[in-house]
Order: sequence, then C-alpha cells, then structure tokens
Amino acid sequence: MVRLLEILHGSRYYLDLIAWEIKANREMSSQEKLRDGLELTGNFADEDNWYIYEPIGNPNDMASDIIPDCQLTVPFDLYHCSMAPISLVILLVLSLLVKRKKLHPDFWKGVPGLLSPMNFLEETQNKGLAIAVFGILFSSLCVLLLDNDPLPFISNSSIQNREYWKMLALLYYPAFYYPLLACATVQHRVGYLLGCLLSWCHCVLYIWQKVECPQSPKIYRYYSLLSYLPIILCLAMLSLWYPMKLVESFKGDAKMATEKVPGSSYYEDYLKHILTKRIPKKSINGVKPRRLSSLQSYLRTFVYTPQKGFQIPLKLALSLAMAVIAVYQVALLLLASFIPNIQIVRAGMTKEMTALFVQFGIIPSKNPASIPGDKELATAKHYIWSLEVCFISSLVVSCMVTFCMLLKSMGNHRTNLRCLYRGAVEKVFYRSCKLQPSQQSLVCWMQFTGFQISFACLALLIQHIVFFICIVCFTFLIVVPLQSGSNMHLFKIVVNLWPFWLTLIVSFIAQNLLVHYYFLERDHLPRELTNRRAFYIVTYMFFPINVLLGLMAGIWRMVISALYNIVHFCQLDGSLLSHGVERFDPGYRTYCQYLKIEVSQSHPVMKAFCLLLLRWQSDQNMQTLQLRDAEEGIKLMKTTSSAPKASKGQQNRVRWCLAYTLINNPSLLPYRKGALVDATANGTKGSLTRP
Amino acid sequence: MVRLLEILHGSRYYLDLIAWEIKANREMSSQEKLRDGLELTGNFADEDNWYIYEPIGNPNDMASDIIPDCQLTVPFDLYHCSMAPISLVILLVLSLLVKRKKLHPDFWKGVPGLLSPMNFLEETQNKGLAIAVFGILFSSLCVLLLDNDPLPFISNSSIQNREYWKMLALLYYPAFYYPLLACATVQHRVGYLLGCLLSWCHCVLYIWQKVECPQSPKIYRYYSLLSYLPIILCLAMLSLWYPMKLVESFKGDAKMATEKVPGSSYYEDYLKHILTKRIPKKSINGVKPRRLSSLQSYLRTFVYTPQKGFQIPLKLALSLAMAVIAVYQVALLLLASFIPNIQIVRAGMTKEMTALFVQFGIIPSKNPASIPGDKELATAKHYIWSLEVCFISSLVVSCMVTFCMLLKSMGNHRTNLRCLYRGAVEKVFYRSCKLQPSQQSLVCWMQFTGFQISFACLALLIQHIVFFICIVCFTFLIVVPLQSGSNMHLFKIVVNLWPFWLTLIVSFIAQNLLVHYYFLERDHLPRELTNRRAFYIVTYMFFPINVLLGLMAGIWRMVISALYNIVHFCQLDGSLLSHGVERFDPGYRTYCQYLKIEVSQSHPVMKAFCLLLLRWQSDQNMQTLQLRDAEEGIKLMKTTSSAPKASKGQQNRVRWCLAYTLINNPSLLPYRKGALVDATANGTKGSLTRP
Repeated sequence: MVRLLEILHGSRYYLDLIAWEIKANREMSSQEKLRDGLELTGNFADEDNWYIYEPIGNPNDMASDIIPDCQLTVPFDLYHCSMAPISLVILLVLSLLVKRKKLHPDFWKGVPGLLSPMNFLEETQNKGLAIAVFGILFSSLCVLLLDNDPLPFISNSSIQNREYWKMLALLYYPAFYYPLLACATVQHRVGYLLGCLLSWCHCVLYIWQKVECPQSPKIYRYYSLLSYLPIILCLAMLSLWYPMKLVESFKGDAKMATEKVPGSSYYEDYLKHILTKRIPKKSINGVKPRRLSSLQSYLRTFVYTPQKGFQIPLKLALSLAMAVIAVYQVALLLLASFIPNIQIVRAGMTKEMTALFVQFGIIPSKNPASIPGDKELATAKHYIWSLEVCFISSLVVSCMVTFCMLLKSMGNHRTNLRCLYRGAVEKVFYRSCKLQPSQQSLVCWMQFTGFQISFACLALLIQHIVFFICIVCFTFLIVVPLQSGSNMHLFKIVVNLWPFWLTLIVSFIAQNLLVHYYFLERDHLPRELTNRRAFYIVTYMFFPINVLLGLMAGIWRMVISALYNIVHFCQLDGSLLSHGVERFDPGYRTYCQYLKIEVSQSHPVMKAFCLLLLRWQSDQNMQTLQLRDAEEGIKLMKTTSSAPKASKGQQNRVRWCLAYTLINNPSLLPYRKGALVDATANGTKGSLTRP
Repeated sequence: MVRLLEILHGSRYYLDLIAWEIKANREMSSQEKLRDGLELTGNFADEDNWYIYEPIGNPNDMASDIIPDCQLTVPFDLYHCSMAPISLVILLVLSLLVKRKKLHPDFWKGVPGLLSPMNFLEETQNKGLAIAVFGILFSSLCVLLLDNDPLPFISNSSIQNREYWKMLALLYYPAFYYPLLACATVQHRVGYLLGCLLSWCHCVLYIWQKVECPQSPKIYRYYSLLSYLPIILCLAMLSLWYPMKLVESFKGDAKMATEKVPGSSYYEDYLKHILTKRIPKKSINGVKPRRLSSLQSYLRTFVYTPQKGFQIPLKLALSLAMAVIAVYQVALLLLASFIPNIQIVRAGMTKEMTALFVQFGIIPSKNPASIPGDKELATAKHYIWSLEVCFISSLVVSCMVTFCMLLKSMGNHRTNLRCLYRGAVEKVFYRSCKLQPSQQSLVCWMQFTGFQISFACLALLIQHIVFFICIVCFTFLIVVPLQSGSNMHLFKIVVNLWPFWLTLIVSFIAQNLLVHYYFLERDHLPRELTNRRAFYIVTYMFFPINVLLGLMAGIWRMVISALYNIVHFCQLDGSLLSHGVERFDPGYRTYCQYLKIEVSQSHPVMKAFCLLLLRWQSDQNMQTLQLRDAEEGIKLMKTTSSAPKASKGQQNRVRWCLAYTLINNPSLLPYRKGALVDATANGTKGSLTRP
C-alpha cells in the first residue's frame, strides 16, 4: 500500500517530463519531427539507450508552472520539537495535579497513571471532541503515508529507513495528539484551560504554515493544502469547543454536579422512553402496501432521522465520521493525481500524436495516411476532455454511493442495536449467541473504527474504477459514435444480432402467454396445471432457446452480484457472502463482535439502573463515595456492604425496579446470576456493570 | 454470443497466416530479415497498406499441416433430407395407430394429437432416455452456434441471413430429434421397434460421417470430431436402450402390466420408507464435534451418495447431466482454440521475435542491444510453454471446481426437496410461501434446465479466466523468478515492505495478548472486561495501525467474496446476493419457483396415494378405467362417483390412510380443501392431483 502510493507519487515525475517534452516539441516543425522520429526508430540497434529521455528545449518554458520554493518560518521540525515537550508537560501536570488529587487522594504516593483518552463505551456527550481528534489523527496518517519524511525529527532518510520511520510514526502521532483528548476527560477547568491553549497553538501554527506556503510540488500544487484542510477544520473545532467548556465550567458549577456522570440524561431518557405506554399503531394488516409506498420506504432507509430516546454509540458515530473524512482524502488523491496530468496532456496534444490515433482508427479521418489537420486535433482534444469528464463524473457517483451506503448503515446500526437491547439476538445474527466479552470480540471492538475507515476507502476506490470503466465504455461506444457518426461498432453488432434478440424476446413472451392462457387453470383458486402433454411439448421445443435465455440471465446474475458487492462493500453491517457462510466475511464478523461488546458493556437500561442506584446512595448523603467512580465501577458493592442498612420500603422499591427492568430486558438476565454468585463468593469484588 | 463465437472462429484464420509467415521467415537469414523489417518501418508513410499481409515464401511448406479436403458419401443435407421425412412418418404412424387406439377409442374420428415427448413431472425410470436425447439436442446446439450453415438445407447463406437460419434451426433440431423421445412414451412394442430403427439409422450415419472425415478446418482439426462425440455416445446409448426395451416387452407382458404407471414402485418405496419406524439416532448432544470430523462432513457434502427411498426428480437429473455435457463442450472449445495456436507460435519462435521480449525486459539478457542467442530463444520458448501449462492447469482446476459444485448442488437439491415434502417451507425459502402453480413458477420450471446449462457454461468460462490470470501471475511472479533468478520484482517489493508486514503482525499479536492477559477478567465465567482505562488507551494508540490492518482485511474481503461468487456461480440452489435480497438473483429465483412446481405437482406421497386408490379400484374389477389415465388424472373422480359403493370397512380403511398421510405430510393439507370444494361444486371435474 505504502509502496503503491509512492509509485503513484513517483509517476508525477515522468508525467512532468512528458509535459516538458510536449512543450519542447511544439517548437520543432512537424516535418523535422517526423524525420527525426523515423531516424530514431531506424537506428535503434546502434544506440543503446535511445529510449532514455534527454530533455530537448529550454526548461525555462515551464517557468510559469514551477512552484516557488518556499521557506517556512516555523518548519515542521521546529513545530514538533516545541509542541511535543509542551504536550508531555501538560499531560504530566494534569496527571499529577488533577487526577491524583481528585480521584485517589490516598494513592498520592503512588506512580501517577495515564489519563484515559476517552471513555469510548460510555461517553455520549463529547462526540464532537472525539471526532475532531480522530479526524486530525487520520488525516495525519494520510499525509504521513505519502510523505518522504514521515517522522518530523529525521529528515532526508534513505528509502530503506523510511519504512521504519513510517511505522514508528504510526505510534508517534497518536501520542502527539493525545493531550488534546486527555484535557477533556479530567472534566476540570484546569484541563479545559490547558486544552484551550494547546488547541490554539496547534491551530495557529498549522494555519500560519499553510498561509505562508500554500503550494507544494507533491502530486498537485494545492494537494497538500487540501489534504491538510480536515486537520485545520478539526483543530478549529477544538479551539472553539475548549473555550466553550471552560466558560461553562465557570458559569454553572451546580449544574455540572448533576451531570457529572457522562450521558446520565440520555440513559434516563432511554429508560423513560421504553417504559412509556405505547399508542398502538394503526393495524395495516390486510391492506397490501403499494409499490410506490414501498419504494418510498426503501428510499427512506437511506436517510438517517434521529429518533427520540436513542443515540448512536460513540464508537459508531466516530467510525462513520472517519469514513467520511477517508472518502474525502481518497477522492482528493484520485482527483489530484489524474486531472492535472491529463490536462497537461490535453494542452500539449500535437498533430503528430494525433496521427497515432488516426492510424489506430480511433479518430476518423478522410485520409489516414496524411498528416492530420486541425479537425482531427480538435477531435483528439475532445476525446481527452471526455475522458476527464468521465473521470470526474465517476468519482462524483462513487462518492455519492458511498455516502448513501454509510447513511443507510447508520439506520441499520440503530435497528440492530435496538433489537439486541430487546434481546432479539437471532434477529440480528441469524443464530443464537451469548452477548458477553471474549478475546475475539474485544479485539474486534478495538479494530472496528479502523476497519470501517479502510473499507470505505477501498469501496470508493473499487467503485471509482468500475464506474469509470463503465462510463468510459458508455461514452465511447454510445455517446461519441452518436455525436460523430463514426466508430459505430457496438451499433453494428447489435443490428447484426437482432434476430437473436427478437427470438429471445418473442420466445419469452410466447412462453408466458402460453402458460397464462393455456397451461394454468384459470377458473378457480388454487390454480392448477392443465394440458400437461402440450406443456411437456412446449418445454421440450423451447429447450434450445431457453439455454440462450439462460445465458442472458447468467450475465445478468454476474452483473447484479458484482454491482451489489461493489456498492455494499463499505457496509460492515451486511455480509457479502450468502446466507450460512456470513462468518467468513471479515467485515461482518468484526461488526457482529463489536455489537456484542457494545451491547454487553453499555446497555442503556443497565446504565440507567446503575445511575438510579448511585443517585439513591447519594441521597443517603454518602459523601465518601465519589460519583466519578461510576464509570470505573469499582466501589459500589464494597460501599453497599459497608453502608447503613436501607429501610424495608426502599429495599422493596429497588427490588421492584430490578424485576421490572429485567422483565423488559431479558438480555440482561444472564449477567444477574453471575454477579450474584460473585457477590456471595467475594463480597468486595462485585462490579457495577452487573446489576 | 453467436457473434463472439464467430470472431473466435475467425481468429483461427489470422493465426494460420502468422504461422505461415513464421515458417517462411525461418528461411531468410536473420540479417536480411532485420534490414527488411527496418525498411518496412522506415517507409510506412509511403506505402498505404503496408500492414496488410502478403504471404512471403512458398505456402507448400505448410503441406503437411493442411487438412485434406474430404467428400462425405452421405453429406449432412442428404442425411437430414432423408431422416426428417422418416421421423415425420414414424411420428404420424405412432400417433394414428398406437395412441388413438390405445387411449381414446371413442375419439377415433378426432384429429390425432401429438405424442407427449416425456412426462417430465412423473417419469422416474427413463432418465437415461431423456438425458440421451437432450444431450444430442444440446450438442447439436453447440455445433450449430459455430456453424456457417446452421440449417442443413440452406448452404452458403450470407452473413445477414445466417442469423435468421440459426434462430430457425433452434426450433428445427428439437423437432428433428422429437421421435427419438416419442417412440418410448407410447410404451408399446411398435414404438420400441420404430425407436430402435431410428436410433440405429442416426447412429450409423453419424459414425460413418466421422470415420470418413475425422478432420475439419474449423478451429482445430479434431475439434469437430470431439464436439460430435457426445452426440454419437448418446445415440449409441439409445441404440442399446430401445432394443433392450423391445426384448423386455416381448419377455414379460404380465410383469409390465403391474408397472404400467411409471415410477409406481418408487412412490410406494418412498411411502414405505417414511412410514417405517425410525431407530432413534445416538444422541450426540453435549459432545462437541471435532474439527476433523466437521471437515470430513463438509467434504462429504461434495459426494452425492444415493439414499434409500429417494430419487432425484427427472428434470433435476436432466439439468445436471446437461451441465456436465455443457462443461465438456466449453472446455473443448477453450482448449481447441488456444493450445494448437500457441503451439504454432512456440514452434515458430525466432531470434528476431525474442529480441522484442529482451527489449521489454521480459527475458533477461547480458547484452540487450545485440541479437539474442540460443539461450534467450530457449527461454522465450520455455515461457510460452509455461503459458500453455498454466492454461491447461487452470482449465483442469475450473472443470474440477464446476463438477464438485454440481455434485454438491445435487445434495442440496435432495435436502431441499425432502424439507419441502415435509412441509418445512421456511427452512428452504427463508420465508413462508404457498406451494402452488403460478404463471411465473411454470415459466421458471420450463426454463430451469436451460438456465442450469448456461450457468454451468458461464461459470466455467469465468472460473477459467480468473484462475488462468491467477496461475499466470503465480508462475511469472514467483515460480519463474525462483527458477531463473531474474525478474524478482515481487520479492523486492515484499522485502522493501517488510517493516510494514512486521508492524501489522506484531500489533495484531500484541492486541490479542493484551486482551487475553490484561483486559479480560480470567478468574470466573462469564468473562468480563477489566482495566478499562488502559483498554481505551490501547484502542486510541493502535488506531492508525488498525486502519492498515483494516486495509488488509478489506482486500481479503474483496478476494473472498469474489472467489466465493465465482466458485458458486454454477449453483442455482444458493443466491449470490446476501440475506434479504436473494430474490433479485435470477438463478436462485428460478430455482425456488422450479421447486414449487416440482413439489406441488409430483409429491411422492400424493402420487403413492393416487396409486393406492387406483389399485383399489382395479381390485374392484373396474376394467373400463384404464390405468394409463393415471398420469393425466382425468377420470378418477368421475368414475368414483359412478362406481358401486364401497363397503363400510374399505371406506374406513381409505379414510384412515388419508388421515395418516396428511398428518405425516402437512404440506398436502392446503390442497385437500380446494379439491373438496371443487368436488362438491362440479363433481365431474375434480382432478387426481388433489387427493
């Protein structure tokens, strides 16, 4: 992959050479050129390296195209050298001052631990933050893969070493941007303040660099600027988010206390929503849905409309947002590596080169042996322009398709999650399985975002290639011949084969009509086969034609299955393999395992139940228990056992709540028994995650 | 398709020209040739049509390769002109003398109807006959599509008209071979005698023709002979089958009477089999199947072993046999159109042509500019030989795969039919649906055989192309470089990228180990996620590497889904689309509709029940009712109503039989009510097919 991108990058050099040559050649008269070319061909046995290019003409002709060499005031080395220590210091300060003081005052003498980057299984409010930081990280990764100096401190590395540095850079960048996330998780105004400063620094430095040097020689002059755009936008978002949080933290201290457990309001909303009495939907049994309305409902699956009492989990939202950025980066790379180069070729098209096309019969000409005139040159340019249009339109179509499929998969995710929350496991996985963590499922959960991004990239690439080929075929076999009246090969074939098509259509209709009027008893229901002897005769007589019909059906089967797989490639929520062997599809398997963890670890009802328990304890003025521990689930059972005994009425209330919740959520049942066994075995070690 | 085959056919001409040229060129000294070639290139502007071939050298050199012109004693025209009227006469004689006399003596004055070619829904004994005649028909179709004179009576037709004649021939050939089938369906010794004579005539004439002229100039000298082989074999089979039946008819008149209703023994066997008490299988609950045994059971699905009390229906057996012939024909065509031509090219390889390969760097040479020596020529020939080997091995592999899949689908057909006979509709179609004839299902039933054949052809073609590309890549990127030590491009890329592979593997293992030992609570079941903060940090830090891992998974997803679809293309019993959209796959839809008709019209229990009823009636000495009417199901209800009343005991016995059958076959229930309603509404019009 990395190698491939390098090759792509390197090809720019050769294309520049071609462009130069084209420009230089323009100045030589066409007669001279032709003679020169023939001599070149004639003497190829004498000259060893005749095919190695030696520039002809003055390279200064290209002066206007050359990108000005640009010196950054703050180069990347300096930027990283200054920001990396600052980030490290911020991380240490936060760890020492905030976290230890706040969470574990008794652990003061211990070694300070790392801050959590984000509680991926719990957080439902700070989605913007996570998306912004992961967006920066992913865009850096895209820039990094194409870069010659992947690590900022080591410049001019050899090709051999470059691969090592690239792999090292894959770990450096996450660490470099780590404080941007960590500043928010401490949920303290010092953290917000430091986050503010850090994001402003990053943002200002990046913008400064890009304003100073907007152009770069890599791939396309503005490619670097455009590929940095998501980073700058994400940093700008962070630069606004942190100050906002800081202001909030000063404004409403009291308000924050109630919302200290992240997402508490959502979990309660969810619980309220599922406990409300439903107004029974109008029964539509017996009324057959119309074709139009079923089409409408199908189209509606592509539009994700938020529903009350349900939020997409953080990891899913993150994956889909990253997939969108990935699509942007891949589309940009494709566009920047093709369009400018083909424009150079089009601008430098000469009559000599047109002669080649004429010789091969691609461009029609009255006298193919003579040197082509302006008309042929214009046609050649028009053809190349058509190619450009095809490329851009196929890219647009494939981007649209990928976005639609991502939107559709959001709807599918919601449906699947709702089903699993209800305990309808077989409806989602088509087989029964236990929703509990295993090694495989945890690894898949970790990899899910990466997989979603890669699949979106690959899907865009494949779709673009296939659609490009299809559109080019359509253009040059149908549109261009219709415009110019030449190269009517396809039409000729179709016309020659018309008895074939006619036979197929007529025999298909004939078989249908015969069955409808002659072989199917039409008077009463259930319909019955009649006139059997004639039926067998028709079956026998139409056998050869049905083989040909089968060929058409086979081609259609091939096309539809290929198209289906290509279009649905970016969706992880469906298998590309057929029913029964779904588990061999790595994408679908990862998704299923991901769902298991998501449902078993952050079931909204379970969370809401834990919150209710915590609130009840805080009502009892148990100030020693910090609410922040809720997310770690460490101390609940211990404090419960040491807490003063609750009154009989309160106990009953809790038990009733439990029973009601369990009845409505049978998927929680298996966890209960295990937790109870644990609680009796070692009373202090129970965890909050098993109510 | 037809056009394509013609192009393929035409290409042989150009290749012959090339072969001639190669042979002629051998005689010119290489120095002369080089000069000649350069002059040709140098002067291409002067000579308009320099690229049009003019034969150099003496064509007599090819004398040994030229196919001797051969005159048939009985040409095809004469053969068809004589056999077609004979067939027609036989058909008329059979219709008039046998059928009318035997079935409807009261209809003697009516117009004689056509004989039924074969009772495709009922016949379970004469599978060999049907397969032989359809084999002849399909092989004729293959020959016909490549032929210049598709209809035997019209020779030297223009290209324009040829297409019409081809389409007309698609109806002529089934009619021409019709009597071969019809002679058997009358089930009378006159029919067998005529069938005997007819099949002997066909067989002797074909063998005579092929012995006289084994070679033909089309595609490959022995192609015509080999493509006629299935026809001759099928005719030979018929020539043995008819005499056997004739002898049987003379031998045991009494024996025949009991078996007059075709397949009666099978239906009774089936009924006996399902009514026998089952010995309960040893319960294997709790014992987990071993990996080896599950592999064994998977491999066993590819081997179709006949089971007692079940026979594959005629139409399915026919389709699979035809698919095998189709695979033979396509493989033969591919082999004959590639191997002889590439052998000609290999034999005619010269040093001048090797120079081209050397220039392009395909063949390694110490001095690429000089004229290549014997070593380079040998290398070039070795490369072309490798290409041949690749082609043959890919063809063998794809044939094997197609056969395996056809065998596997036979097993699937049996499983599906057994399920449907039991009434387990949802297990087969994944949704509930009524098993009764409809227009679509009848048309699909008619087309099923044609579809199966075409899908097998296309599957072989696609598999061959894909496997050929894969094997060629494997050979020239891995095997040949390892042999010769040159062109190590792939190895260089892999070596350059090894930090990348190492990172991926190490990070994958690291994530698994971390999850196993650190994030998964290992002490008790169900296992629980622990160390959440570290888990989130690892998730964040490994994000960029997981994107790269995702790329690999995405490529794997692409490969596995493409491979799966290609391998399973010939199977109609599975959809290539994923769960929920199966119905858009034309192959799978046809198969489902086919199953509906097969189950609703020839349910073995229903047939057995009808047979029991018929036998009971014949026991009552109702000689007026002919047993032969059973297959048409016309007169049963009428005769029942007019029959003398059965005793109370017999009625009870029949009712008990009915109840028992219906309990064991719930899928028959829906038919019962309809039949009863019909019977009361119009007593005379009930049909036997609804007991």
